[in-house]
Amino acid sequence: MCLISAAVSDKCCTMDVFEKRAAVFMETTKRFPRKIWKLGRDDPRRAIHSIKVGVSLTLVSLLYLLNPLFKGVGENVIWAVMTVVVVLEFTAGATLCKGLNRGLGTLFAGSLAFLFKFIATDSGKVFCAVFIGASVFLIGSISTYLRFFPYVKKNYDYGVVIFLLTFNLITISSYRVDDVLKLARERLYTMAIGSGVCILMSLFIFPIWSGEDLHNFSVSKIEGLAKSIAACVDEYFSDGEPDAGKDKSIEDPIYENYKAVLDSKSTDETLALHASWEPRHSWHCNPFPWQQYVKLGGVLRHFGYTVVALHGSLQTEIQTPKSVRLLFKDPCTRLATEVSKALMELADSIRNRRQCSPEILSDHLHQALQDLDTALKSQPRLFLGPNGPNNTANMLALVAETTRSKPEKHLSSVKTESSALFEWRSKRTSKQSMEAEGRLLRPTLSKLAITSLEFSEALPFAAFAALLVEAVAKLDLVIEEVEALGRIACFKDFEIGDDVVFNISKMEINLPSNSVD
Amino acid sequence: MCLISAAVSDKCCTMDVFEKRAAVFMETTKRFPRKIWKLGRDDPRRAIHSIKVGVSLTLVSLLYLLNPLFKGVGENVIWAVMTVVVVLEFTAGATLCKGLNRGLGTLFAGSLAFLFKFIATDSGKVFCAVFIGASVFLIGSISTYLRFFPYVKKNYDYGVVIFLLTFNLITISSYRVDDVLKLARERLYTMAIGSGVCILMSLFIFPIWSGEDLHNFSVSKIEGLAKSIAACVDEYFSDGEPDAGKDKSIEDPIYENYKAVLDSKSTDETLALHASWEPRHSWHCNPFPWQQYVKLGGVLRHFGYTVVALHGSLQTEIQTPKSVRLLFKDPCTRLATEVSKALMELADSIRNRRQCSPEILSDHLHQALQDLDTALKSQPRLFLGPNGPNNTANMLALVAETTRSKPEKHLSSVKTESSALFEWRSKRTSKQSMEAEGRLLRPTLSKLAITSLEFSEALPFAAFAALLVEAVAKLDLVIEEVEALGRIACFKDFEIGDDVVFNISKMEINLPSNSVD
Repeated sequence: MCLISAAVSDKCCTMDVFEKRAAVFMETTKRFPRKIWKLGRDDPRRAIHSIKVGVSLTLVSLLYLLNPLFKGVGENVIWAVMTVVVVLEFTAGATLCKGLNRGLGTLFAGSLAFLFKFIATDSGKVFCAVFIGASVFLIGSISTYLRFFPYVKKNYDYGVVIFLLTFNLITISSYRVDDVLKLARERLYTMAIGSGVCILMSLFIFPIWSGEDLHNFSVSKIEGLAKSIAACVDEYFSDGEPDAGKDKSIEDPIYENYKAVLDSKSTDETLALHASWEPRHSWHCNPFPWQQYVKLGGVLRHFGYTVVALHGSLQTEIQTPKSVRLLFKDPCTRLATEVSKALMELADSIRNRRQCSPEILSDHLHQALQDLDTALKSQPRLFLGPNGPNNTANMLALVAETTRSKPEKHLSSVKTESSALFEWRSKRTSKQSMEAEGRLLRPTLSKLAITSLEFSEALPFAAFAALLVEAVAKLDLVIEEVEALGRIACFKDFEIGDDVVFNISKMEINLPSNSVD
Repeated sequence: MCLISAAVSDKCCTMDVFEKRAAVFMETTKRFPRKIWKLGRDDPRRAIHSIKVGVSLTLVSLLYLLNPLFKGVGENVIWAVMTVVVVLEFTAGATLCKGLNRGLGTLFAGSLAFLFKFIATDSGKVFCAVFIGASVFLIGSISTYLRFFPYVKKNYDYGVVIFLLTFNLITISSYRVDDVLKLARERLYTMAIGSGVCILMSLFIFPIWSGEDLHNFSVSKIEGLAKSIAACVDEYFSDGEPDAGKDKSIEDPIYENYKAVLDSKSTDETLALHASWEPRHSWHCNPFPWQQYVKLGGVLRHFGYTVVALHGSLQTEIQTPKSVRLLFKDPCTRLATEVSKALMELADSIRNRRQCSPEILSDHLHQALQDLDTALKSQPRLFLGPNGPNNTANMLALVAETTRSKPEKHLSSVKTESSALFEWRSKRTSKQSMEAEGRLLRPTLSKLAITSLEFSEALPFAAFAALLVEAVAKLDLVIEEVEALGRIACFKDFEIGDDVVFNISKMEINLPSNSVD
């Protein structure tokens, strides 16, 4: 009885599971049309490319379906279809790269195969078979080994595969077919027809350029970095309690903004490789500077690593007390805003293909750096740790001395300094009670017991400030590369009025997520 | 006369350039055999794979060359050759993935094509042609659009291409060939023969597993991080003048060690995708835990970003004076050594497929962390910047108070503290003169003029120390993932005597650089 009821409940369970799965399936099916629509709306070029492939295939199949055309090319039209399916890629550069690889591979393979055929001719059937077998083995092994060379793998991998394929087809066929030359020529013709259709479609009808993608990707990466650095500093000084309990790096909006930069290496290199095959777009300048975009990508990745470290300061185990953080809110926020603004100006200059204005960039930045410097110097008490209320007077004297010793330099930020000092003084009394709750800890960090240590509370803040300064230094490298890009790509000169005021929070980034085929 | 001599010198120049290029070419040609040899020595599996491809091709071509076999399969043997060339990949997982994609694509395409043929049958020639043209266009567009879905692109991209290819070949051929079914069946047979040869070669003769590669890659990544974190701290506290003039991130040995980690995302995912197709290796456990390796890879990348930031501290514009750095050399080096040792233990545990010993890891680490904490607290003067020699006495009193207030906690590191204090006292006199030269600057950083600012010199050091502590926190996440990996992959239990003493400086890393096909 008990067994039966267990079996029944088991069956119920199975039914439940089945029903749940069915519900999930229904849900997925329901969402599918919306997904299809979204895919095309995000990047309408996807729909255009799909239609282009359909049209190309129909064009090529007409060679077979229409009687007069069929009489001209014959059965071998199949090779034209195959060429279109395999060669026609999303961007013009990728199509050209694949098409040229295919053409070169076929040509080399054909020449070699005929050379071998010439050697084996007039010899006995057995010798011929052995010779063919040996050459298939040798060429197969050698060309596969060649594919392991990084240079070959990067540029000519597809070409080597096609070479191997064609060589084997011709060499093996030549054993039984007498007029291999005719066969090969016919196939080459139809392949040429297929390639012609592909080139026509990719270069002249709604062309999609890898170079354009690379350009836009660079812009969106810089914008993402600008947004994330501003958001990082905002969150660090925000009033809301940071949610230290969960690992935020997964679905954090800050992370979303810079993650495209971190993993951009392969995308950059693929886009650049394809862009290098594309004909130049404009007539008044040199070829498309794809190498410079790759270099810029590298510098941006290194900038991104600094942003990651800055982001890490938000999630670190030992948090600086909020009261301490508030003291430096103004100069840090200003510096971060300046860095973001500079990055946005760089992104805008690349987008509009004009030189950037470095004077505008560094002027405010310099000011912001100086302000942070002043603010840091005005609060030496912080770097002493939480033990020593008896020497506050000395500290104040020291602060006063610091302010007095360089009055000519710190004129602009005297307001910040004195107000910060006032703030600090008034908050000192309530600080002691806040120190205990100020040190936030991630619950998972159990074993290493960083918790029991009492590092100076200013340590994480010092790291934050140093990383912010580091970001400024990295920004300089980014500016350098963007300027070099402007020179090499012959961007138009900067004119007064070109610089726009940016509203960072309102921007949307739309990455060409699937443009790399 | 002048023109002639100019022309002559021009010609000489051209000759010179030509000769130089010839020399470069000769040099490259001379180095080529050595490169070929190195490629095989670095990873002998490359040579094995090449020979396997050669043997497979020869086996398949025997079907055509030997009379009795040829009578069985006929002309269509060409498709077997094609299958071998395209499907046989470096690792078993990649071959299975491609083979299954090809098989599924062919099967679906065949079914759909015969359905369409059934609909179009018994209708007029014209209607049939229009119907074929329309279906070629529709199926071509739809399947190309499907390839843009990230899920399809990741798992079934090749399958969709083969589907499209086969569907077009059968549908178009069916217009003129009457017995398409026979043709398709024959091709399917020969394709099956080709696939059989591929599976035999990849699974049973010197098999190369993606899972194995993923496993070894994880080990080498952890070792690389261990080496670079130790090297970073060594270089930071080394006596040699850091060469701040050049951008070191390009050919730096530290960078070499961690760069594989930074750009590991696509490699990890490709290896994991292929590993997911492989049959399990051992009988006593669940399938290969490729997801866990991907998760571990993600955590390692985040650890890597901290190492990058740490490395950035070495190259930063505002350098901490050497005298200050020397004060913290011992505790920092000890902490870094402990982190490296922990990472090496993790790498070793994964390599030997055994559980790691977390107690051993965290015990020393905790001690090292505490020592650094003590050392930092013992030097509060540092965080005051270069202005205030008058309050040294207060500082010393403060230090003494700090030491006195927690004697029970800092017992183990009292020696470090007092000796550091002594060192600091004796060096204080010579410090003032060193401060001017201590601030090293990269010459390229011209515009932003960080140079003119006088940030507290302890700021970069505080960042360095905070990042080191951050690395310890990230290490905890790495340990968590490795432990999870040990559980899921059923690694054998840790036994006393399993832990080995590592000599970090003597290790060599050998990455499977080209194993991802």
